[in-house]
Amino acid sequence: MHALIVHCHPEPQSFNAALTRITRETLSAGGASVVISDLYAEGFDPFEGPSHYTARADADYFSALAEQRHAGNNDSRPADVKREIERLERADLVVLQFPLWWHAQPAMLKGWFDRVFVYGGLYTGRRRYDEGHFRGKRAMLSVTTGGPAHTFSPYGRGGPIERLLWPIHYSLHYMGFDVLPPFVAHGIQGGGIAYQDRAAFDAHLNDAKTRWAERLRRIDDSERIPFTGWRDWDDDGVLACEHPQRWLG
Amino acid sequence: MHALIVHCHPEPQSFNAALTRITRETLSAGGASVVISDLYAEGFDPFEGPSHYTARADADYFSALAEQRHAGNNDSRPADVKREIERLERADLVVLQFPLWWHAQPAMLKGWFDRVFVYGGLYTGRRRYDEGHFRGKRAMLSVTTGGPAHTFSPYGRGGPIERLLWPIHYSLHYMGFDVLPPFVAHGIQGGGIAYQDRAAFDAHLNDAKTRWAERLRRIDDSERIPFTGWRDWDDDGVLACEHPQRWLG
Repeated sequence: MHALIVHCHPEPQSFNAALTRITRETLSAGGASVVISDLYAEGFDPFEGPSHYTARADADYFSALAEQRHAGNNDSRPADVKREIERLERADLVVLQFPLWWHAQPAMLKGWFDRVFVYGGLYTGRRRYDEGHFRGKRAMLSVTTGGPAHTFSPYGRGGPIERLLWPIHYSLHYMGFDVLPPFVAHGIQGGGIAYQDRAAFDAHLNDAKTRWAERLRRIDDSERIPFTGWRDWDDDGVLACEHPQRWLG
Repeated sequence: MHALIVHCHPEPQSFNAALTRITRETLSAGGASVVISDLYAEGFDPFEGPSHYTARADADYFSALAEQRHAGNNDSRPADVKREIERLERADLVVLQFPLWWHAQPAMLKGWFDRVFVYGGLYTGRRRYDEGHFRGKRAMLSVTTGGPAHTFSPYGRGGPIERLLWPIHYSLHYMGFDVLPPFVAHGIQGGGIAYQDRAAFDAHLNDAKTRWAERLRRIDDSERIPFTGWRDWDDDGVLACEHPQRWLG
Protein backbone atom coordinates (compact mmCIF):
# COMPACT_ATOMS: atom_id res chain seq x y z
CA MET A 1 0.00 0.00 0.00
CA HIS A 2 1.10 3.56 -0.66
CA ALA A 3 -0.17 6.34 1.58
CA LEU A 4 -0.16 10.12 1.28
CA ILE A 5 -0.45 12.25 4.39
CA VAL A 6 -1.54 15.82 3.69
CA HIS A 7 -0.33 17.56 6.81
CA CYS A 8 -1.54 21.06 7.68
CA HIS A 9 -0.17 22.70 10.81
CA PRO A 10 2.33 25.57 11.16
CA GLU A 11 4.12 24.18 14.26
CA PRO A 12 6.49 21.17 13.90
CA GLN A 13 6.12 20.30 17.61
CA SER A 14 2.34 20.42 17.56
CA PHE A 15 -0.13 17.72 18.51
CA ASN A 16 -0.99 17.48 14.81
CA ALA A 17 2.66 16.98 13.88
CA ALA A 18 2.95 14.19 16.45
CA LEU A 19 -0.12 12.49 15.00
CA THR A 20 1.35 12.72 11.49
CA ARG A 21 4.56 11.06 12.74
CA ILE A 22 2.44 8.27 14.27
CA THR A 23 0.60 7.87 10.96
CA ARG A 24 3.86 7.51 9.08
CA GLU A 25 5.38 5.12 11.62
CA THR A 26 2.31 2.94 11.98
CA LEU A 27 1.60 2.64 8.26
CA SER A 28 5.30 2.05 7.51
CA ALA A 29 5.44 -0.66 10.17
CA GLY A 30 2.50 -2.29 8.39
CA GLY A 31 4.47 -2.37 5.15
CA ALA A 32 3.17 0.75 3.45
CA SER A 33 5.26 3.39 1.72
CA VAL A 34 4.38 6.85 2.97
CA VAL A 35 4.77 10.34 1.51
CA ILE A 36 3.93 13.52 3.42
CA SER A 37 2.71 16.74 1.85
CA ASP A 38 3.64 19.19 4.61
CA LEU A 39 1.75 22.21 3.34
CA TYR A 40 3.20 24.84 5.68
CA ALA A 41 6.77 23.49 5.54
CA GLU A 42 6.67 23.23 1.74
CA GLY A 43 5.22 26.73 1.45
CA PHE A 44 2.13 25.67 -0.45
CA ASP A 45 0.32 28.67 -1.90
CA PRO A 46 -3.31 28.23 -0.88
CA PHE A 47 -5.16 30.66 -3.04
CA GLU A 48 -6.39 30.02 -6.52
CA GLY A 49 -6.03 32.95 -8.85
CA PRO A 50 -4.53 34.34 -12.06
CA SER A 51 -0.95 34.41 -10.73
CA HIS A 52 -0.64 30.63 -11.15
CA TYR A 53 -1.35 30.65 -14.87
CA THR A 54 1.15 31.92 -17.40
CA ALA A 55 -0.50 30.69 -20.61
CA ARG A 56 -4.07 31.81 -20.07
CA ALA A 57 -7.21 30.38 -21.67
CA ASP A 58 -8.63 33.88 -21.45
CA ALA A 59 -6.27 36.69 -20.51
CA ASP A 60 -9.16 39.12 -20.04
CA TYR A 61 -11.37 37.13 -17.70
CA PHE A 62 -10.13 34.80 -15.00
CA SER A 63 -12.22 31.69 -14.44
CA ALA A 64 -10.61 29.08 -12.17
CA LEU A 65 -12.34 26.21 -13.96
CA ALA A 66 -11.47 27.45 -17.45
CA GLU A 67 -7.83 28.02 -16.54
CA GLN A 68 -7.50 24.69 -14.73
CA ARG A 69 -8.85 22.85 -17.79
CA HIS A 70 -6.70 24.84 -20.17
CA ALA A 71 -3.54 24.27 -18.14
CA GLY A 72 -4.23 20.54 -18.09
CA ASN A 73 -4.70 20.46 -21.83
CA ASN A 74 -1.48 22.40 -22.40
CA ASP A 75 0.70 20.76 -19.77
CA SER A 76 1.14 24.10 -18.04
CA ARG A 77 -0.23 23.29 -14.63
CA PRO A 78 1.55 25.01 -11.72
CA ALA A 79 4.47 22.91 -10.47
CA ASP A 80 3.08 22.52 -6.95
CA VAL A 81 -0.28 21.36 -8.29
CA LYS A 82 1.44 18.85 -10.59
CA ARG A 83 3.41 17.53 -7.63
CA GLU A 84 0.33 17.10 -5.47
CA ILE A 85 -1.57 15.36 -8.26
CA GLU A 86 1.31 12.94 -8.78
CA ARG A 87 1.32 12.18 -5.08
CA LEU A 88 -2.43 11.58 -5.15
CA GLU A 89 -2.20 9.34 -8.21
CA ARG A 90 0.31 7.10 -6.42
CA ALA A 91 -1.68 6.86 -3.17
CA ASP A 92 -4.07 4.09 -2.18
CA LEU A 93 -4.84 5.91 1.04
CA VAL A 94 -4.91 9.66 1.70
CA VAL A 95 -4.92 10.95 5.29
CA LEU A 96 -5.64 14.63 5.86
CA GLN A 97 -4.22 15.81 9.21
CA PHE A 98 -5.38 19.21 10.46
CA PRO A 99 -6.78 21.21 13.38
CA LEU A 100 -10.39 22.35 13.18
CA TRP A 101 -10.22 26.12 12.77
CA TRP A 102 -13.48 28.05 12.51
CA HIS A 103 -15.55 24.90 12.04
CA ALA A 104 -13.55 23.71 9.03
CA GLN A 105 -10.06 22.99 7.74
CA PRO A 106 -7.47 25.85 7.92
CA ALA A 107 -7.28 28.09 4.84
CA MET A 108 -4.01 26.42 3.84
CA LEU A 109 -5.72 23.05 3.45
CA LYS A 110 -8.85 24.57 1.94
CA GLY A 111 -6.62 26.06 -0.74
CA TRP A 112 -5.17 22.61 -1.40
CA PHE A 113 -8.69 21.52 -2.36
CA ASP A 114 -9.26 24.70 -4.40
CA ARG A 115 -6.06 24.34 -6.42
CA VAL A 116 -5.23 20.62 -6.64
CA PHE A 117 -8.60 19.09 -7.52
CA VAL A 118 -8.52 20.57 -11.01
CA TYR A 119 -11.45 20.79 -13.39
CA GLY A 120 -10.98 18.96 -16.65
CA GLY A 121 -8.12 16.79 -15.44
CA LEU A 122 -9.50 15.36 -12.22
CA TYR A 123 -13.23 15.93 -12.62
CA THR A 124 -15.85 16.91 -15.15
CA GLY A 125 -19.63 17.21 -15.02
CA ARG A 126 -20.01 13.45 -15.32
CA ARG A 127 -16.72 12.25 -13.77
CA ARG A 128 -17.67 12.99 -10.19
CA TYR A 129 -18.94 11.28 -7.03
CA ASP A 130 -18.94 7.48 -7.37
CA GLU A 131 -17.68 7.96 -10.95
CA GLY A 132 -14.92 10.23 -9.64
CA HIS A 133 -11.29 10.14 -10.68
CA PHE A 134 -9.98 8.64 -7.43
CA ARG A 135 -12.54 5.84 -7.09
CA GLY A 136 -11.00 2.76 -5.52
CA LYS A 137 -8.80 4.88 -3.28
CA ARG A 138 -9.54 5.64 0.36
CA ALA A 139 -9.40 8.98 2.15
CA MET A 140 -9.70 9.82 5.82
CA LEU A 141 -9.55 12.86 8.07
CA SER A 142 -7.52 13.03 11.29
CA VAL A 143 -8.66 16.14 13.10
CA THR A 144 -7.94 17.91 16.37
CA THR A 145 -10.49 20.15 18.08
CA GLY A 146 -10.08 22.75 20.80
CA GLY A 147 -13.21 21.86 22.76
CA PRO A 148 -13.88 18.58 24.56
CA ALA A 149 -15.69 15.69 22.87
CA HIS A 150 -19.14 16.27 24.34
CA THR A 151 -19.30 19.81 22.92
CA PHE A 152 -19.06 18.21 19.44
CA SER A 153 -21.79 15.64 20.14
CA PRO A 154 -25.11 15.99 18.27
CA TYR A 155 -26.41 18.59 20.75
CA GLY A 156 -23.08 20.13 21.74
CA ARG A 157 -22.36 23.83 21.43
CA GLY A 158 -19.26 23.24 19.28
CA GLY A 159 -21.52 21.85 16.56
CA PRO A 160 -21.96 18.15 15.72
CA ILE A 161 -18.61 16.96 14.37
CA GLU A 162 -20.34 15.02 11.55
CA ARG A 163 -21.98 18.22 10.38
CA LEU A 164 -18.79 20.26 10.61
CA LEU A 165 -16.79 17.73 8.60
CA TRP A 166 -19.53 17.02 6.07
CA PRO A 167 -18.44 19.58 3.43
CA ILE A 168 -14.90 18.13 3.52
CA HIS A 169 -16.09 14.54 3.42
CA TYR A 170 -18.44 15.36 0.57
CA SER A 171 -15.62 16.98 -1.39
CA LEU A 172 -13.61 13.76 -1.07
CA HIS A 173 -16.66 11.75 -2.16
CA TYR A 174 -17.03 14.18 -5.10
CA MET A 175 -13.52 13.18 -6.19
CA GLY A 176 -14.43 9.50 -6.03
CA PHE A 177 -12.69 8.53 -2.80
CA ASP A 178 -14.12 5.97 -0.41
CA VAL A 179 -14.28 8.09 2.73
CA LEU A 180 -13.49 6.38 6.03
CA PRO A 181 -14.90 7.69 9.33
CA PRO A 182 -12.63 10.38 10.78
CA PHE A 183 -10.29 10.12 13.73
CA VAL A 184 -10.89 13.05 16.07
CA ALA A 185 -8.69 14.03 19.00
CA HIS A 186 -10.65 16.48 21.13
CA GLY A 187 -9.63 19.09 23.65
CA ILE A 188 -6.33 19.93 21.97
CA GLN A 189 -5.08 23.48 22.31
CA GLY A 190 -1.82 25.04 21.32
CA GLY A 191 0.99 25.75 23.75
CA GLY A 192 0.23 28.29 26.41
CA ILE A 193 -3.55 28.17 26.26
CA ALA A 194 -4.83 24.90 27.64
CA TYR A 195 -1.88 22.99 29.08
CA GLN A 196 -0.35 23.89 32.39
CA ASP A 197 2.78 21.90 31.72
CA ARG A 198 4.50 19.61 29.29
CA ALA A 199 3.44 16.49 31.20
CA ALA A 200 -0.26 17.24 30.68
CA PHE A 201 0.34 17.76 26.94
CA ASP A 202 2.29 14.51 26.72
CA ALA A 203 -0.32 12.48 28.62
CA HIS A 204 -3.07 13.77 26.34
CA LEU A 205 -0.93 13.13 23.29
CA ASN A 206 0.02 9.61 24.31
CA ASP A 207 -3.61 8.67 24.71
CA ALA A 208 -4.48 10.03 21.25
CA LYS A 209 -1.44 8.38 19.66
CA THR A 210 -2.42 5.00 21.08
CA ARG A 211 -5.99 5.28 19.84
CA TRP A 212 -4.94 6.57 16.43
CA ALA A 213 -2.29 3.89 15.90
CA GLU A 214 -4.89 1.24 16.76
CA ARG A 215 -7.31 2.71 14.19
CA LEU A 216 -4.55 2.75 11.56
CA ARG A 217 -3.49 -0.83 12.17
CA ARG A 218 -7.06 -1.97 11.45
CA ILE A 219 -7.70 0.44 8.62
CA ASP A 220 -8.35 -2.31 6.08
CA ASP A 221 -11.34 -3.41 8.18
CA SER A 222 -12.76 0.11 8.35
CA GLU A 223 -16.30 0.84 7.28
CA ARG A 224 -16.92 3.63 4.76
CA ILE A 225 -19.17 6.64 5.12
CA PRO A 226 -22.21 6.02 2.90
CA PHE A 227 -23.08 8.62 0.26
CA THR A 228 -25.61 8.75 -2.53
CA GLY A 229 -24.35 8.37 -6.11
CA TRP A 230 -25.39 8.49 -9.75
CA ARG A 231 -27.61 5.41 -9.38
CA ASP A 232 -29.68 7.28 -6.77
CA TRP A 233 -30.31 10.53 -8.63
CA ASP A 234 -32.80 11.42 -11.31
CA ASP A 235 -31.87 13.43 -14.39
CA ASP A 236 -32.08 16.66 -12.40
CA GLY A 237 -29.53 15.43 -9.86
CA VAL A 238 -32.07 14.95 -7.06
CA LEU A 239 -32.53 11.78 -5.04
CA ALA A 240 -35.06 9.98 -7.22
CA CYS A 241 -37.38 8.77 -4.46
CA GLU A 242 -37.42 12.20 -2.82
CA HIS A 243 -37.64 14.53 -5.79
CA PRO A 244 -39.88 17.35 -4.57
CA GLN A 245 -41.62 17.70 -7.94
CA ARG A 246 -42.64 14.09 -7.83
CA TRP A 247 -44.47 14.58 -4.56
CA LEU A 248 -45.42 18.21 -4.47
CA GLY A 249 -46.16 19.07 -8.02
CA MET B 1 -26.25 52.25 8.85
CA HIS B 2 -22.69 51.30 8.02
CA ALA B 3 -22.06 48.18 5.98
CA LEU B 4 -18.94 46.14 5.29
CA ILE B 5 -18.78 43.92 2.22
CA VAL B 6 -16.10 41.23 2.40
CA HIS B 7 -15.65 40.41 -1.26
CA CYS B 8 -13.80 37.28 -2.32
CA HIS B 9 -13.34 36.65 -6.04
CA PRO B 10 -10.20 36.92 -8.19
CA GLU B 11 -11.96 38.32 -11.29
CA PRO B 12 -13.19 41.96 -11.31
CA GLN B 13 -15.69 41.22 -14.11
CA SER B 14 -17.17 38.20 -12.35
CA PHE B 15 -20.74 37.53 -11.35
CA ASN B 16 -19.61 37.92 -7.75
CA ALA B 17 -18.05 41.31 -8.50
CA ALA B 18 -21.30 42.45 -10.11
CA LEU B 19 -23.26 41.36 -7.05
CA THR B 20 -20.89 43.28 -4.78
CA ARG B 21 -21.43 46.41 -6.90
CA ILE B 22 -25.19 45.92 -6.52
CA THR B 23 -24.78 45.54 -2.76
CA ARG B 24 -22.88 48.79 -2.55
CA GLU B 25 -25.27 50.67 -4.81
CA THR B 26 -28.42 49.38 -3.15
CA LEU B 27 -27.26 49.95 0.41
CA SER B 28 -25.86 53.37 -0.49
CA ALA B 29 -29.15 54.33 -2.12
CA GLY B 30 -30.83 53.38 1.16
CA GLY B 31 -28.63 55.82 3.05
CA ALA B 32 -25.91 53.48 4.30
CA SER B 33 -22.19 54.08 4.13
CA VAL B 34 -20.40 51.12 2.60
CA VAL B 35 -16.81 49.84 2.79
CA ILE B 36 -15.53 46.91 0.73
CA SER B 37 -12.78 44.51 1.82
CA ASP B 38 -11.73 43.20 -1.58
CA LEU B 39 -9.54 40.32 -0.39
CA TYR B 40 -7.93 39.42 -3.73
CA ALA B 41 -7.46 43.01 -4.89
CA GLU B 42 -5.98 44.04 -1.53
CA GLY B 43 -3.67 41.01 -1.51
CA PHE B 44 -4.94 39.64 1.79
CA ASP B 45 -2.66 36.89 3.10
CA PRO B 46 -5.00 34.03 3.97
CA PHE B 47 -2.88 31.75 6.05
CA GLU B 48 -2.30 32.02 9.77
CA GLY B 49 1.22 31.26 10.84
CA PRO B 50 4.40 32.47 12.55
CA SER B 51 5.35 34.91 9.76
CA HIS B 52 2.67 37.37 10.93
CA TYR B 53 4.08 37.74 14.43
CA THR B 54 7.27 39.65 15.14
CA ALA B 55 7.06 39.85 18.95
CA ARG B 56 6.20 36.27 19.84
CA ALA B 57 4.50 35.00 22.98
CA ASP B 58 6.60 31.85 22.56
CA ALA B 59 9.35 31.90 19.97
CA ASP B 60 9.86 28.14 20.27
CA TYR B 61 6.30 26.93 19.79
CA PHE B 62 3.75 28.54 17.48
CA SER B 63 0.18 28.49 18.73
CA ALA B 64 -2.23 30.65 16.73
CA LEU B 65 -4.39 31.34 19.77
CA ALA B 66 -1.48 32.22 22.05
CA GLU B 67 0.06 34.54 19.47
CA GLN B 68 -3.24 36.20 18.61
CA ARG B 69 -3.86 36.96 22.30
CA HIS B 70 -0.31 38.13 22.85
CA ALA B 71 -0.36 40.42 19.82
CA GLY B 72 -3.62 41.96 21.03
CA ASN B 73 -2.18 42.59 24.48
CA ASN B 74 0.96 44.15 23.00
CA ASP B 75 -0.63 46.14 20.19
CA SER B 76 1.39 44.19 17.65
CA ARG B 77 -1.39 42.69 15.56
CA PRO B 78 -0.58 42.39 11.84
CA ALA B 79 -1.60 45.56 9.97
CA ASP B 80 -4.09 43.79 7.70
CA VAL B 81 -5.79 42.14 10.67
CA LYS B 82 -6.00 45.49 12.48
CA ARG B 83 -7.56 47.04 9.39
CA GLU B 84 -10.17 44.29 9.05
CA ILE B 85 -11.07 44.48 12.76
CA GLU B 86 -11.51 48.25 12.50
CA ARG B 87 -13.80 47.74 9.51
CA LEU B 88 -15.81 45.14 11.43
CA GLU B 89 -16.09 47.36 14.51
CA ARG B 90 -17.60 50.13 12.39
CA ALA B 91 -20.11 47.89 10.59
CA ASP B 92 -23.73 47.32 11.55
CA LEU B 93 -24.09 44.85 8.68
CA VAL B 94 -21.46 42.54 7.19
CA VAL B 95 -22.08 40.90 3.80
CA LEU B 96 -19.73 38.11 2.72
CA GLN B 97 -19.73 37.74 -1.09
CA PHE B 98 -18.10 34.58 -2.50
CA PRO B 99 -18.43 31.64 -4.86
CA LEU B 100 -18.95 28.18 -3.33
CA TRP B 101 -15.69 26.31 -4.01
CA TRP B 102 -15.42 22.74 -2.80
CA HIS B 103 -18.54 22.99 -0.67
CA ALA B 104 -17.29 25.99 1.31
CA GLN B 105 -15.83 29.48 1.01
CA PRO B 106 -12.59 29.87 -1.03
CA ALA B 107 -9.33 29.54 0.94
CA MET B 108 -8.85 33.30 0.72
CA LEU B 109 -12.05 33.94 2.68
CA LYS B 110 -11.44 30.99 5.02
CA GLY B 111 -8.14 32.60 5.92
CA TRP B 112 -9.94 35.84 6.67
CA PHE B 113 -11.84 33.94 9.38
CA ASP B 114 -8.65 32.22 10.59
CA ARG B 115 -6.69 35.44 10.95
CA VAL B 116 -9.19 38.25 11.69
CA PHE B 117 -11.39 36.67 14.37
CA VAL B 118 -8.60 36.77 16.94
CA TYR B 119 -8.57 34.94 20.23
CA GLY B 120 -8.35 37.15 23.28
CA GLY B 121 -9.36 40.34 21.48
CA LEU B 122 -12.56 39.23 19.74
CA TYR B 123 -13.47 36.08 21.62
CA THR B 124 -12.63 34.09 24.73
CA GLY B 125 -14.05 30.92 26.26
CA ARG B 126 -17.03 32.82 27.61
CA ARG B 127 -17.29 35.69 25.11
CA ARG B 128 -18.74 33.62 22.29
CA TYR B 129 -22.05 32.78 20.62
CA ASP B 130 -24.89 35.00 21.88
CA GLU B 131 -22.36 36.62 24.24
CA GLY B 132 -20.03 37.17 21.28
CA HIS B 133 -18.11 40.36 20.54
CA PHE B 134 -20.24 41.41 17.57
CA ARG B 135 -23.66 40.89 19.16
CA GLY B 136 -26.14 43.42 17.89
CA LYS B 137 -24.57 43.43 14.43
CA ARG B 138 -25.94 41.47 11.46
CA ALA B 139 -24.05 39.26 9.02
CA MET B 140 -25.18 37.63 5.80
CA LEU B 141 -23.74 35.48 3.04
CA SER B 142 -24.24 36.17 -0.68
CA VAL B 143 -23.08 33.07 -2.48
CA THR B 144 -22.86 31.83 -6.05
CA THR B 145 -22.93 28.12 -6.92
CA GLY B 146 -21.95 26.29 -10.08
CA GLY B 147 -24.83 23.82 -10.09
CA PRO B 148 -28.52 24.67 -10.51
CA ALA B 149 -30.78 25.30 -7.51
CA HIS B 150 -32.43 21.87 -7.34
CA THR B 151 -29.07 20.12 -6.93
CA PHE B 152 -28.65 22.10 -3.69
CA SER B 153 -32.13 21.21 -2.40
CA PRO B 154 -32.38 18.87 0.63
CA TYR B 155 -31.98 15.77 -1.55
CA GLY B 156 -29.84 17.28 -4.31
CA ARG B 157 -26.49 15.84 -5.30
CA GLY B 158 -24.68 19.16 -4.74
CA GLY B 159 -25.50 18.88 -1.03
CA PRO B 160 -28.22 20.80 0.82
CA ILE B 161 -27.16 24.45 0.76
CA GLU B 162 -28.12 24.89 4.44
CA ARG B 163 -25.74 22.09 5.38
CA LEU B 164 -22.90 23.41 3.22
CA LEU B 165 -23.16 26.90 4.67
CA TRP B 166 -23.72 25.79 8.26
CA PRO B 167 -20.05 25.88 9.36
CA ILE B 168 -19.76 29.46 8.04
CA HIS B 169 -23.05 30.56 9.58
CA TYR B 170 -22.07 28.95 12.87
CA SER B 171 -18.74 30.78 12.84
CA LEU B 172 -20.60 34.08 12.47
CA HIS B 173 -22.94 33.08 15.31
CA TYR B 174 -19.85 32.17 17.36
CA MET B 175 -18.67 35.76 16.95
CA GLY B 176 -22.02 37.05 18.16
CA PHE B 177 -23.55 38.19 14.87
CA ASP B 178 -27.23 37.89 14.12
CA VAL B 179 -27.05 35.78 10.96
CA LEU B 180 -29.56 36.52 8.22
CA PRO B 181 -30.63 33.83 5.72
CA PRO B 182 -28.22 33.76 2.77
CA PHE B 183 -28.78 35.01 -0.74
CA VAL B 184 -27.79 32.29 -3.20
CA ALA B 185 -27.43 32.74 -6.98
CA HIS B 186 -27.26 29.27 -8.50
CA GLY B 187 -25.93 27.97 -11.77
CA ILE B 188 -23.14 30.54 -12.06
CA GLN B 189 -19.95 29.44 -13.81
CA GLY B 190 -16.92 31.39 -14.86
CA GLY B 191 -16.29 32.54 -18.42
CA GLY B 192 -15.80 29.83 -20.95
CA ILE B 193 -17.45 26.98 -19.07
CA ALA B 194 -21.17 27.48 -18.83
CA TYR B 195 -22.07 30.50 -20.89
CA GLN B 196 -22.23 30.39 -24.66
CA ASP B 197 -22.22 34.13 -24.97
CA ARG B 198 -22.20 37.38 -23.12
CA ALA B 199 -25.96 37.81 -23.49
CA ALA B 200 -26.67 34.60 -21.55
CA PHE B 201 -24.33 35.72 -18.78
CA ASP B 202 -25.98 39.14 -18.66
CA ALA B 203 -29.51 37.73 -18.58
CA HIS B 204 -28.61 35.43 -15.71
CA LEU B 205 -26.85 38.25 -13.91
CA ASN B 206 -29.69 40.72 -14.32
CA ASP B 207 -32.12 38.26 -12.80
CA ALA B 208 -29.85 37.69 -9.79
CA LYS B 209 -29.17 41.42 -9.41
CA THR B 210 -32.88 42.18 -9.32
CA ARG B 211 -33.57 39.53 -6.69
CA TRP B 212 -30.58 40.52 -4.59
CA ALA B 213 -31.36 44.23 -4.67
CA GLU B 214 -34.91 43.46 -3.56
CA ARG B 215 -33.61 41.40 -0.63
CA LEU B 216 -31.23 44.19 0.37
CA ARG B 217 -33.89 46.88 0.26
CA ARG B 218 -35.94 44.88 2.78
CA ILE B 219 -33.02 43.76 4.90
CA ASP B 220 -34.32 45.43 8.05
CA ASP B 221 -37.36 43.15 7.90
CA SER B 222 -35.27 40.01 7.51
CA GLU B 223 -35.68 37.09 9.86
CA ARG B 224 -32.59 35.68 11.57
CA ILE B 225 -31.31 32.12 11.54
CA PRO B 226 -32.05 30.63 14.96
CA PHE B 227 -29.16 29.15 16.96
CA THR B 228 -28.83 27.80 20.45
CA GLY B 229 -26.97 29.89 23.01
CA TRP B 230 -25.70 29.94 26.58
CA ARG B 231 -29.20 29.84 28.07
CA ASP B 232 -29.77 26.50 26.31
CA TRP B 233 -26.60 24.66 27.36
CA ASP B 234 -25.73 22.87 30.55
CA ASP B 235 -22.35 23.25 32.25
CA ASP B 236 -20.81 20.77 29.81
CA GLY B 237 -21.87 22.80 26.78
CA VAL B 238 -24.57 20.38 25.68
CA LEU B 239 -28.20 21.28 24.96
CA ALA B 240 -29.66 20.85 28.45
CA CYS B 241 -32.84 19.01 27.46
CA GLU B 242 -30.89 16.63 25.22
CA HIS B 243 -27.81 15.91 27.27
CA PRO B 244 -27.08 12.24 26.64
CA GLN B 245 -25.99 11.60 30.23
CA ARG B 246 -29.26 12.86 31.51
CA TRP B 247 -31.20 10.28 29.52
CA LEU B 248 -28.79 7.46 28.99
CA GLY B 249 -26.79 7.38 32.18
